[in-house]
Amino acid sequence: MADRVLVIGADAAGMSAASQALRTAKATGRDLDVIAVDRGHWTSYSACGIPYWVAGDVASADKLVARTPEQHRANGIDVRMVTEATAIDTDAGWVEVHDHAAGRLERLGYDQLIIATGATPVRPDVPGADAAGIHGVQTLDDGGAVLRHLARPLERAVVVGAGYIGLEMAEAMVRRGLAVTVVDRGREPMNTLDPDLGTQVHAAMEAMGIDVVTSASVTAFETGPGGVTAVVTDAGTFPADVVVLGTGVRPATDLARAAGLPLGPSGGLRTDDTQRVVDGVWSAGDCVETWDRVRGDWVHVPLGTHANKQGRVLGTNLGGGSARFPGIVGTALTKVCDLELARTGLTEGDAVDAGLDHVAVTIESTTRSGYFPGTKPITVKMVAERPTGRLLGAQIVGRDGSAKRIDVCAMALWTELTVGELAMTDLAYAPPFSSVWDPVQIAARKAADRL
Amino acid sequence: MADRVLVIGADAAGMSAASQALRTAKATGRDLDVIAVDRGHWTSYSACGIPYWVAGDVASADKLVARTPEQHRANGIDVRMVTEATAIDTDAGWVEVHDHAAGRLERLGYDQLIIATGATPVRPDVPGADAAGIHGVQTLDDGGAVLRHLARPLERAVVVGAGYIGLEMAEAMVRRGLAVTVVDRGREPMNTLDPDLGTQVHAAMEAMGIDVVTSASVTAFETGPGGVTAVVTDAGTFPADVVVLGTGVRPATDLARAAGLPLGPSGGLRTDDTQRVVDGVWSAGDCVETWDRVRGDWVHVPLGTHANKQGRVLGTNLGGGSARFPGIVGTALTKVCDLELARTGLTEGDAVDAGLDHVAVTIESTTRSGYFPGTKPITVKMVAERPTGRLLGAQIVGRDGSAKRIDVCAMALWTELTVGELAMTDLAYAPPFSSVWDPVQIAARKAADRL
Repeated sequence: MADRVLVIGADAAGMSAASQALRTAKATGRDLDVIAVDRGHWTSYSACGIPYWVAGDVASADKLVARTPEQHRANGIDVRMVTEATAIDTDAGWVEVHDHAAGRLERLGYDQLIIATGATPVRPDVPGADAAGIHGVQTLDDGGAVLRHLARPLERAVVVGAGYIGLEMAEAMVRRGLAVTVVDRGREPMNTLDPDLGTQVHAAMEAMGIDVVTSASVTAFETGPGGVTAVVTDAGTFPADVVVLGTGVRPATDLARAAGLPLGPSGGLRTDDTQRVVDGVWSAGDCVETWDRVRGDWVHVPLGTHANKQGRVLGTNLGGGSARFPGIVGTALTKVCDLELARTGLTEGDAVDAGLDHVAVTIESTTRSGYFPGTKPITVKMVAERPTGRLLGAQIVGRDGSAKRIDVCAMALWTELTVGELAMTDLAYAPPFSSVWDPVQIAARKAADRL
Repeated sequence: MADRVLVIGADAAGMSAASQALRTAKATGRDLDVIAVDRGHWTSYSACGIPYWVAGDVASADKLVARTPEQHRANGIDVRMVTEATAIDTDAGWVEVHDHAAGRLERLGYDQLIIATGATPVRPDVPGADAAGIHGVQTLDDGGAVLRHLARPLERAVVVGAGYIGLEMAEAMVRRGLAVTVVDRGREPMNTLDPDLGTQVHAAMEAMGIDVVTSASVTAFETGPGGVTAVVTDAGTFPADVVVLGTGVRPATDLARAAGLPLGPSGGLRTDDTQRVVDGVWSAGDCVETWDRVRGDWVHVPLGTHANKQGRVLGTNLGGGSARFPGIVGTALTKVCDLELARTGLTEGDAVDAGLDHVAVTIESTTRSGYFPGTKPITVKMVAERPTGRLLGAQIVGRDGSAKRIDVCAMALWTELTVGELAMTDLAYAPPFSSVWDPVQIAARKAADRL
């Protein structure tokens, strides 16, 4: 008889896992019967694409969907949308689900459970935070809600939080013609970069016409009959017809917690490197903690690229194959207007916090040979451990052609190279693509010299 | 008393070495007296930039010069231009030089000798090969000669050889309004890629209006009173007002050979990883053989990026410091019109030639998320060793944003990752920069699956 696999959450992690489990099972001769439930309306979509959908770069939500429920069904997965898991019993092996469309509550038994419940936007714990017009941006349904709201004649948007989502949503709002204020608690926007690079982000935001308010904490939301009317901070009150929360997310693990499953300090599920939580229970994506190879610690880093990889690892193991998720090094990037920014590993601030003896260097260079048409400025900051010389982290801010260079640093972190070695690796050079020493290598060389 | 350092060749390798030697000597308290001789008119220039100078992307030769003779002199190096080394005596410790400006021959004694004589374009060994109007493109003086020639009213250019220089010069000629034919011996242009990717290069060249003649060997050059008039091949005769040789270069080591210094099969000098040839003699750049970490063999790869790194290593050691050149993995890239191409490590053809048990996979993907505006096609081919899974090499052909991704593969080769591990590394993802699995990782995953 087939093993029943029940998937809670039909986005990247859950459906990658389900699809891979079926592929692997086919190869290993196992028989799986897969049901996936999701409380929303969409499967396997790019949540990272939502700001670009809101901005108008992407024409419709459909474009962000890699696979529809119908496509998953055609692949043999029993996908049930608008169906919310409401309880898990791992002893008895069932999940209670609420089919909102049919208005029916039922228990679905399972042999193997995949928890892929993702993450939930953090709402500031202040008065008015639940008012209408205050949007988190985590699901396609959230994105749709923002767009419906923006269809009204609005003038002023406030974005709370100047991280990845905050920046991307702020730009989207500007491009839709709103006056945008971004308020953030940090000294500079984008606190996953050191403040000395954050200043460039700050300047790029202002150049786009965004009003940037730093070192400001939200203390309340003012509301009227139609919902939110202003964001109150300790640095002033900012009128708002619409508010977007870019204040981060937390793992959506209430069910898992209630079921007594192991969670880390972030609230994320703890898995082994096969993505197994406990016998018969698996998890992947934004609801898990992930091993950070540089920090040597568990972290919560909700990113689609990890969700997809973890889902694939999970599915391979569940299907009877063998795969390991080897952890992350903390790589991320985005852009604000034409300013690209990227980071991997530890910032200087992280190194200080961790009490690591280190050197930090920053270099200015160009994306192409200095004499080549279209060359753009690039800033690379690099942090290395003293006295070993091991690369600890890198940050890049620059124009077209800058940010993806972070991948070289990510590879160096992955393999624990020293900055001296990184400076001597064989990176591609031709005048339209790089200076003769790649900017990453100029920074590595300078760090090695400093050591 | 100061040690006298004599440098033969004042381009990237030689002058990087000289400058670094002085910097290191200052730190180690050594006293060096540096003389550099060069038969040409320019120091420390980007030879890689010559095609872009010819094309008009770069306004003048000056722009390609990183440091002028005057600047080097201001840094304490006695630079003597238009001064050709004509003999080396390593036993007695002198070099005979011919100062063409003064018409004077003299012997310069040295304590430490740096041979940085670079490389010389290979001329086909056929009748007429020395005719006027047939240009190698290796030095700024060569570039100047081409431009002086192109100032005449010319119609037809033939480029012999469809490698990096051949492609870049063909494009330059097209952009200057000439009708261009490229003849090459290979099945497809760009034989450092496998032919299945070479077809894309072929198509891009034709789309630019270049007449591409493959599987054709040059048998003679027809000449008239003004120089070359046609290129004769076994696939037809092609009229030419100007001919550019893209048939590769050989190490310029006639002096070194005559001095009895150790050369490899390519004719390049053999050095240790400090860039020392023999006691008191050093070498770097296009005149040396370099250790290929993937092949496990010496190779001749004349590239500015290696020349600069080797020069720096050489100078550090000569100046009393300690540095090692760790070898290369065979990374290179260029572009033809808007088609970018890159390679590192072994091609499938190389793996076959080496008798390695391997798998080769090719994937088609996009440079950004498929739904993101401006996303472009990218093809990645990857070769992995069987059964170990070790990455052996990668090739990339694609549009804007494709080629520099080869650096991730170069890093993986450098650290001997398997394709399975490469597929799971933490590369940067956001919709404007990549699909959720980077194209490189899609290829690595497919190769791992295939193994």
